[in-house]
Order: sequence, then structure tokens, then C-alpha cells
Amino acid sequence: MEVTVHRKAHFNAAHRLHNPEWDDEKNNRIFGKCNNPNYHGHNYELVVSVTGSIDEETGYVIDMKDLKTIIKEQVEKPFDHKNLNLDTAEFKNLNPTAENIAVVIWNKIKKQLDPAFKLKITLYETPRNFVEYSGN
Amino acid sequence: MEVTVHRKAHFNAAHRLHNPEWDDEKNNRIFGKCNNPNYHGHNYELVVSVTGSIDEETGYVIDMKDLKTIIKEQVEKPFDHKNLNLDTAEFKNLNPTAENIAVVIWNKIKKQLDPAFKLKITLYETPRNFVEYSGN
Amino acid sequence: MEVTVHRKAHFNAAHRLHNPEWDDEKNNRIFGKCNNPNYHGHNYELVVSVTGSIDEETGYVIDMKDLKTIIKEQVEKPFDHKNLNLDTAEFKNLNPTAENIAVVIWNKIKKQLDPAFKLKITLYETPRNFVEYSGN
Amino acid sequence: MEVTVHRKAHFNAAHRLHNPEWDDEKNNRIFGKCNNPNYHGHNYELVVSVTGSIDEETGYVIDMKDLKTIIKEQVEKPFDHKNLNLDTAEFKNLNPTAENIAVVIWNKIKKQLDPAFKLKITLYETPRNFVEYSGN
Amino acid sequence: MEVTVHRKAHFNAAHRLHNPEWDDEKNNRIFGKCNNPNYHGHNYELVVSVTGSIDEETGYVIDMKDLKTIIKEQVEKPFDHKNLNLDTAEFKNLNPTAENIAVVIWNKIKKQLDPAFKLKITLYETPRNFVEYSGN
Amino acid sequence: MEVTVHRKAHFNAAHRLHNPEWDDEKNNRIFGKCNNPNYHGHNYELVVSVTGSIDEETGYVIDMKDLKTIIKEQVEKPFDHKNLNLDTAEFKNLNPTAENIAVVIWNKIKKQLDPAFKLKITLYETPRNFVEYSGN
Repeated sequence: MEVTVHRKAHFNAAHRLHNPEWDDEKNNRIFGKCNNPNYHGHNYELVVSVTGSIDEETGYVIDMKDLKTIIKEQVEKPFDHKNLNLDTAEFKNLNPTAENIAVVIWNKIKKQLDPAFKLKITLYETPRNFVEYSGN
Repeated sequence: MEVTVHRKAHFNAAHRLHNPEWDDEKNNRIFGKCNNPNYHGHNYELVVSVTGSIDEETGYVIDMKDLKTIIKEQVEKPFDHKNLNLDTAEFKNLNPTAENIAVVIWNKIKKQLDPAFKLKITLYETPRNFVEYSGN
Repeated sequence: MEVTVHRKAHFNAAHRLHNPEWDDEKNNRIFGKCNNPNYHGHNYELVVSVTGSIDEETGYVIDMKDLKTIIKEQVEKPFDHKNLNLDTAEFKNLNPTAENIAVVIWNKIKKQLDPAFKLKITLYETPRNFVEYSGN
Repeated sequence: MEVTVHRKAHFNAAHRLHNPEWDDEKNNRIFGKCNNPNYHGHNYELVVSVTGSIDEETGYVIDMKDLKTIIKEQVEKPFDHKNLNLDTAEFKNLNPTAENIAVVIWNKIKKQLDPAFKLKITLYETPRNFVEYSGN
Repeated sequence: MEVTVHRKAHFNAAHRLHNPEWDDEKNNRIFGKCNNPNYHGHNYELVVSVTGSIDEETGYVIDMKDLKTIIKEQVEKPFDHKNLNLDTAEFKNLNPTAENIAVVIWNKIKKQLDPAFKLKITLYETPRNFVEYSGN
Repeated sequence: MEVTVHRKAHFNAAHRLHNPEWDDEKNNRIFGKCNNPNYHGHNYELVVSVTGSIDEETGYVIDMKDLKTIIKEQVEKPFDHKNLNLDTAEFKNLNPTAENIAVVIWNKIKKQLDPAFKLKITLYETPRNFVEYSGN
């Protein structure tokens, strides 16, 4: 009897989409306004979804307080009010598209969870654009 | 050609998380504020999702008016403006976590549907915490 | 490494549910208020979900600007501020239920995408009723 | 000690913006897509706001059950699943812009309320366009 | 140059509407399901709105971190995961309608603010019912 | 007979809160994480509210298409996907707090409107923090 529990969180960050192997013209053509060298930013809304069995003693799949702490340590502390390109090790050499940010967050949180759990990350870059990653 | 139709509903209820086999200290340590003996409460928002083929004559998977009636009889009437622990048979001996409530609702609605339909229950305990159950 | 990207869009349209092979009494009994011969209408909110691999050079699954253009050409231009029954070829002989509209939109957008992508359409007829179609 | 209570409701309707004193060219130039002779439609979301003193015995400004009934009788029954131009007396000779619909609803509900109450109508034509009217 | 700043917060609580001077029949007739002796509950969503001049040095009307602390101390700590009727001094002898809760919160927060500020409280009992109080 | 019409829009931008007359320690103490020298960012959601009489010929207070164009020219083009501190003339010497951004937007849009209209700007920096300015 598998249930998925979802927990919402958020962080505000600056970023710039850029491929250092391309010249300025190509970066501008592909990434458009998102290539602004002075950065722009987003309120990233995050949904962390954990699937597993209900523990009979607690009635929980996972204690939400524990999940909240994992999200705080792995995502909010390193990314909130940061410039993803300049202030984080993860995006020094990785383009911080919503897709790549979701994969990075998935990898960070997965390591903190009991391996029996399945994990899905949903990341809203804006209320109109969002991405999902489940690890495969 | 399978389509999933979703119908939203809601109910407001009081509850308390508690395991009668534990002492007060352990209940308080595990369930924290949710163990308040005087109860607290939520606006539960519910999404009932039914998957099946489109009927060629109606263009419907299921008549939403029928689904609305099933939700009213099975969920809203017994749970709305109730104390889940005290006023319902289902949670007399089952801890009313979001996970357990979702499973109970799934079982109640499944019995009312044509067995050809697949069913998923999504239950928001708050806008930030929600759970999903699909029956397996 | 598969990621799903979602893009929201919307269109406002009039429609009427009606089966020309039934008499008025049956149409009224099955479709109720939705059978009003003078039509009613909705703000349809649409989520187009594309699943594929992340392109290593761009960090994108698909360029959102391209997806936005496809949605504009295939959905917004033909359906926005239209009467689905009278103004569109697709629903001249197909009942414009949310289910059927989702299937029509899926078929139109699928043809514009690289066949390697998986596609899902989520269509909100109202904030309380919505449907999903993934092509099988 | 004045408090404002707000109650949400909704109705789905078709409409067309048109001024019968203008020719087709001018109607099309001013109202654009909204002038489609075959109509289009919206999910109108309504907020009815009533301001008054708190009754000491009930702790209510107004019983929400009474307000809900007034909204059902005055707005939902006559307007839901209707074509505003063709099916309602109010918009036979009045252009059903969001502004005019809000004024019409204000006038209908005001007559049903104790004159001591102040009334405000907020009407969402779409999640992006909405209007407010307070009676002066 | 007056600007209003708004801060959202939330708390989950149980409550019961009841007038001890009435008999059970009248309490049931007036308050209906809200009179359930075993309580029901809500996710209360709160918006605290402070109006004042922009400080030239900070560009702030009020430091949001200070406002967040006031809301935590005055509202979240005493009311979150509580039974308003049983666990709080404020509603021992005051019916916890949304209207009365908004007035109580307004009075508690007003005392913590510089008297130069104007204050408005908006309290959502459900997404469909909400109240506003501005202190007069 | 005055009606207020509201139009929603949005822009994504990077910014940094900083007072150049203060040393680093004071900037950090007052603005906290918002003082990050590498910037952070937000999805700013904007509501532009225009109050005036209903034009009898159109049924409009203001043509929403005109208001949409004004917002595009005055707000979206100069601010979207920009670094407010570095890329805009308005915030070269003005701290880009939500309060100051709202006042700047009000001043820009007011000049484009018929002086008979009243104008209010609501600016969401996050879904939890927002500000309002009405010009006095």
C-alpha cells in the first residue's frame, strides 16, 4: 500500500542561462532574455514528493518534520537569496535551467532518504513554467 | 484511449494524531503539536481522479454529476464539520493522518465505481502538505 | 535521464454539449445545463507537458519559446474567443466535452513535436473539473 | 466596529460584446475577438463583500448561509450555464462587459440585503482581468 | 507617500460556534454544522496589512522580518494547532467566528506596532469565506 | 458610477537591497540575505487597478487592450529579465524594495493614463509578501 506525500517549499534566486562554449551571438539567440549577463531571478516553488509504505505505528510515510529539515538543509540554505551561477558549487559549471536545477535537487535529497523511498521533484520557475524529475 | 477526469471537493474537520499504545511522552515526541488532546483542524481539499475510456455517446469518462454525488455521500456528508477521531467510525481505531484519510476515502469511493475505472485520491491537509493514493 | 517540462496557456470559448442522435429530452437529461442551445462558456486553462532527455548543450528538454509558439498556433489561435461547436472544424461533429477537447489538443500538438517526446495534456474546464490525456 | 465578510461563488456563461448602434467594422475594431457573433465564454468567479457590525449574539456580520442563498437565487440560477446576451433580461439591451455585469449583480444583491450593509462586488472574468463595484 | 505592505501567514485550529445563553435547539438552528460539540477545524490563512510611509534610508514601510516575528508571537504560537474554544484565553467567552477572530488578531498586533501605522487583518476561514477588519 | 478594473501582469528580475551610505556590517544587519552582493531574484506579479466611470458606448472603464499595452511598454519591456540595480535607470540610485518598485511603476503608468482615472499598483514580490500604492 504505497502512498505519496508532497511537501511544498520555496527559494528566491538569481540566475543566468549561458553556455561558455558558445559565442555571445549564439548564447543570445538560444537563451534570449535569459542570457542577460547581469542576471535575472525567480521565486522558485518546489514540491518534494516521497513515495513509500504507510508505517503502521505512526500512520506516516515519512515524518513531515524530517522532510522539512532535509529540504531546509539541502535546498533552502544553499540556494535561497543566492545567485545560482556565482554563489553555488553545483552551478559553477552547469547551466542553471529549471531542468538542471530539478536534477541537482533530486540528487541532493535522494542521498538523505531511506533508499526504499521513491522521490520526485517538481520545480516551478514561474507559475507558467515548471518541470518534474523522478530519477530515471 | 484512456482519459483521467478530476473533480475537486472539500471538507473541514477536526482531528488529533495519537497512538494509544504509546505513552504521552512518546506521542508528544512523534506527533508534536498534532497530538494536542483538544484537537486542531484543517480545510481538507480533495481531488478525486477517475481514469477510463471515453464513452462515444456522451464524450464523458464518467458523468461528473454522478461523481459529485458519490463524493457528497461518501466523503462530505460523513466527514464535513466533524471531529474525525470522535464522530466517525473509520477513525475510531485508525490514526487520522493525511495518509490514512486518503486510503479510507479511496476505499469508500472505489466501491461505488464501475470496477473498470482506475481511481486516485489526492488530499491536501494544508496548501503545503498533501498526499496521493492510487490503491496499490 | 528523463525530465518533464510543463507550460501553461489558456483560451476562452463557448460550447454546448449535445448528441444529435438523441432527442431533446435525452440530451437534456444527460447533459443538463450544459445542453443549453444558446451555449455557455469557460476559461479553459491548459497545461502542456513534454517528457524527454535534457539536451547537454542547452540544459533544456525543449526550448519553451518553441513550445509556446506551437501552443499559440495549434490551440490559442483556432480556439480562443471562439464557439467550439460553430467556429471550429474539430468539433463540428464531435461533442466538445473536456475529454474530447483534451484528445483533440493532444493530437494537434503531438504532430508538431519530435516523435521522441512523450506528451500529456491537462485541461481545466473550471478550477474544479479537469482532465488529463497522455495518448494511450 | 465594522467588519467585511466575503463569500466566493462562480458561474459559467457565454457572452458577446457588441454595440448595436455601431456597424460591424467599428464593433470589430473596438471589441476585437470579444465581438465574435457566435459568442465565447468565461468561468466568472465572484466575490460578494458585505460590510456591517458584528452581531453580539451570533458573532456574525451576516449569516453566510443566508448570503449563499441570496447569491444562488440572484446570480447562479439566472446566469450559470447561460448565454448572457440571449438568455437573460438584464443583458438584452446592455453590453455584458465585466463592468456592466458587476453593476447588475450589485443592484440585484443590494435589494436583498438589510440597507444598513455596504456591498462590494468583485467579478473575475479571467484570472487576469477583474473588476470591482461598490455602488457609487 | 503611503504604501501598504502585506504579509501572509497561517495557522490550523479547531473551533466550535456556540452561544451559551441559547439552548441546543437554537444553537443548532443558527450555527448548523458549525455547532458540532466535538468541534471541527480550519486552515486559517492570514494577511496582515500595514500602511505607513516609506523610510528613506531602508526603502521599507516596516521591516518584514519584524512583522513576521510579531505575527509568530501574537498569532501562530498561541493559535496554531490549538482548539480555539478550549486552549485560548481570548475565546473562552467569545464565540470564535471568523469575524471575532479577526478583531482579536487586530487588537493583538496593533499593540505591537508603532501607533503611526494603520493595520488591516484579512482572515480566510476557507478559500471561499473570508473577513476583513481595519479597526473601526 | 465608478468601477475599478484590474489587470494582472508579471516580470522576472534580479535585485539587491543596499544603502550605499551604510557600511557592509549595517547593510547586512538591516537587509540580511537580501543584501547578497551577487543578487537574488523574484517573479514579480503585478496588478494594475484603474478606477473610473463606465463609458456608455463601450461598457468599459478603459479598454483592457490599451492598458495591456501601457503595462508592456512601461513595465515589462524595461524590467523583465533585468537586473533592477544594474540594468535600469530608475534603480541606479534608489533601493529596489517592493515599496519603491511599486511607487516607480505607479509614476510611470500614471503619466500614460487620462488624468481622470485613479490608479493603484499591487506588487507581489513573493506569494507571501506584497505591497500596494495608490499615489498618496
